[in-house]
Amino acid sequence: MSGPIITLTTDYGTSDHLVGTIKGVILKICPEATIVDINHHVAPFDVLDGALALGAAYRYYPPRTVHLAVVDPGVGTQRRPILVTGEQHYFVAPDNGVLSLVYEREASLTVRHVTAEHYFLNPISNTFHGRDIFAPVAAWIAKTGQGSSFGEEISDFVRFSLPKPKASNNTMKGVVLRVDNFGNLMTNFSPEELPQLATPGGKIKVLVGGKEILQLAQTYAQGAPGEAIALVGSSGFLEISVNKGNAARTLGVNRGAEVTLELA
Amino acid sequence: MSGPIITLTTDYGTSDHLVGTIKGVILKICPEATIVDINHHVAPFDVLDGALALGAAYRYYPPRTVHLAVVDPGVGTQRRPILVTGEQHYFVAPDNGVLSLVYEREASLTVRHVTAEHYFLNPISNTFHGRDIFAPVAAWIAKTGQGSSFGEEISDFVRFSLPKPKASNNTMKGVVLRVDNFGNLMTNFSPEELPQLATPGGKIKVLVGGKEILQLAQTYAQGAPGEAIALVGSSGFLEISVNKGNAARTLGVNRGAEVTLELA
Amino acid sequence: MSGPIITLTTDYGTSDHLVGTIKGVILKICPEATIVDINHHVAPFDVLDGALALGAAYRYYPPRTVHLAVVDPGVGTQRRPILVTGEQHYFVAPDNGVLSLVYEREASLTVRHVTAEHYFLNPISNTFHGRDIFAPVAAWIAKTGQGSSFGEEISDFVRFSLPKPKASNNTMKGVVLRVDNFGNLMTNFSPEELPQLATPGGKIKVLVGGKEILQLAQTYAQGAPGEAIALVGSSGFLEISVNKGNAARTLGVNRGAEVTLELA
Repeated sequence: MSGPIITLTTDYGTSDHLVGTIKGVILKICPEATIVDINHHVAPFDVLDGALALGAAYRYYPPRTVHLAVVDPGVGTQRRPILVTGEQHYFVAPDNGVLSLVYEREASLTVRHVTAEHYFLNPISNTFHGRDIFAPVAAWIAKTGQGSSFGEEISDFVRFSLPKPKASNNTMKGVVLRVDNFGNLMTNFSPEELPQLATPGGKIKVLVGGKEILQLAQTYAQGAPGEAIALVGSSGFLEISVNKGNAARTLGVNRGAEVTLELA
Repeated sequence: MSGPIITLTTDYGTSDHLVGTIKGVILKICPEATIVDINHHVAPFDVLDGALALGAAYRYYPPRTVHLAVVDPGVGTQRRPILVTGEQHYFVAPDNGVLSLVYEREASLTVRHVTAEHYFLNPISNTFHGRDIFAPVAAWIAKTGQGSSFGEEISDFVRFSLPKPKASNNTMKGVVLRVDNFGNLMTNFSPEELPQLATPGGKIKVLVGGKEILQLAQTYAQGAPGEAIALVGSSGFLEISVNKGNAARTLGVNRGAEVTLELA
Repeated sequence: MSGPIITLTTDYGTSDHLVGTIKGVILKICPEATIVDINHHVAPFDVLDGALALGAAYRYYPPRTVHLAVVDPGVGTQRRPILVTGEQHYFVAPDNGVLSLVYEREASLTVRHVTAEHYFLNPISNTFHGRDIFAPVAAWIAKTGQGSSFGEEISDFVRFSLPKPKASNNTMKGVVLRVDNFGNLMTNFSPEELPQLATPGGKIKVLVGGKEILQLAQTYAQGAPGEAIALVGSSGFLEISVNKGNAARTLGVNRGAEVTLELA
């Protein structure tokens, strides 16, 4: 009944015609598509940040959704356009690792180097492959569902791992991966690897921005005014937060800052 | 013919996967929905600001639209999720007053405490009820239209009033409720309560940011360059504006600033 | 099968209910419409910036798309609402030049002064014609496709030309028209008028922000770290860029800055 869904994750921002242009390209090929923005404010050129945004959201979409991810500092160079068929979804992106979290989470997948140029716009610019290559490919796969017609399978696609916390004596050194709209600091500590984070209310010792946090909270609302608290957030990572405040501002800490977890 | 409409009003911002995630949740349940953003830049945790955004926009939508409003500083605590059936629309929100302007404007409404957990995602996080509770409830009410299946009616729901101007001798003291993208200052003075504001061109005396405004304008374009003018804006409140300029910057005034109206 | 497409280009920003309100107005009239944002971050009141955004994007949309452009410093004054029928698309806007690039690029077009007030909301405010006039007109033309019912043809519509580079001795003086999300500086030099810009790899001499650029690049990735490069971007104009950096910040240059091109 309802048309195919195509999601967009880019670093294009929204103060520009870029996103509006690629939506036009998609709708011209596949007018019945529902286009949904996941995030256009990926940090410019930051493939890890794009991987995190897409990785957090894609599994909530229905089967057969096409996810277009364009964070593409190598636009116009030899890096390949790829089409990935996962368990339930399609992914279209440059082959630069922006799909790394997809590779990590999908039990089975096929990665194709997209070489079928008849799907591209003509001419192809050197600076806007989102418009000329990626958007048309996303629209055509949404329309046809025939991945095999886009190019040959490859196995040497680019992937990276999330930065892991590093053990050092009795501590783990982690990092702030991302700061959200509320100033919450998302770290790379996860309860899967650090069981002491699995029990809300438990004792911990976290050092960040010169402050010490000694207990694991369960909700943002548990913090006293201005107090930095730690809890496991909805993405499955330890977050540092200030109740109705802004932890990034309160602690003077930003993306990339070090976070230390003392082991018991 | 066309599917149900679901609007979103949140303080999630758009530099994140949060909005993209709740759209996925909605489309998985109700793929035929048309999702429309009203505003994701509600001031963080600010229930009044969210109430103003939704209050200004919702009546322009077609009957049976579902309005989802998530400004939720109490996420994970005991505050209740509610489903409100108004004269023509549905509203899904935390029970913290974010629907106060809806309560003020709808002649009849039913408020339900949503307890039917089979509509929620499973598991439910403590930090992202927009994804786990509110989005699914909005999608299911859009799909089914059966409010009664979500929970029992309640009458003790949380509501607040807009801050009213205060009389003091021969003046009224009001406040800047909001600053828009053009720097226009929206106050809480309305012509319904202050008839002197009902006649464009009439004499008034407004003090704001150390400036005096003596006449009520009719259009933004009436101001001389750099001149602060006052007029009743499209939301029905007195606004302070600078023609092709930015009143907030020109007057050095922001949200929460005092505005004084001298009575004749 | 799929409903009509209506695109939006405004200076309303997105921290407000304004865009959400006009979408409601459109969907109430034409619920089957697909509404797409081109850009809501046009510089406030800046008709040229709006013209550039729409001009860059509109041709990528399918035939019969309706493009709504509201950059309207004269709201509430006598400036006319217009409906333009181009070769394949409709355009709805205030008659202030915001469609100038459309006039430049469409081989044939009809411009009508919209006077059929029964299409407008009632009452009409003096401050929000996007909601009360332009959105309803866009929705009704999308629904009916009957341009002639909206008003009489006019030929004295407002149009302006893009600022052209100025020759001066052996140089051309141009200007930065726009800065994108990556900090790339879009100038008003185009290879159509300056054949020396038509050959990537060729020698040029561009002066901007006190730096000299001597070669025309082909891709953003060709620049060394921190190095300003010049290339013809996807909009067909010369751009100044820094590979994985931000040319606007690196050069301390913004919109409106002078760019000098030395002729051979």
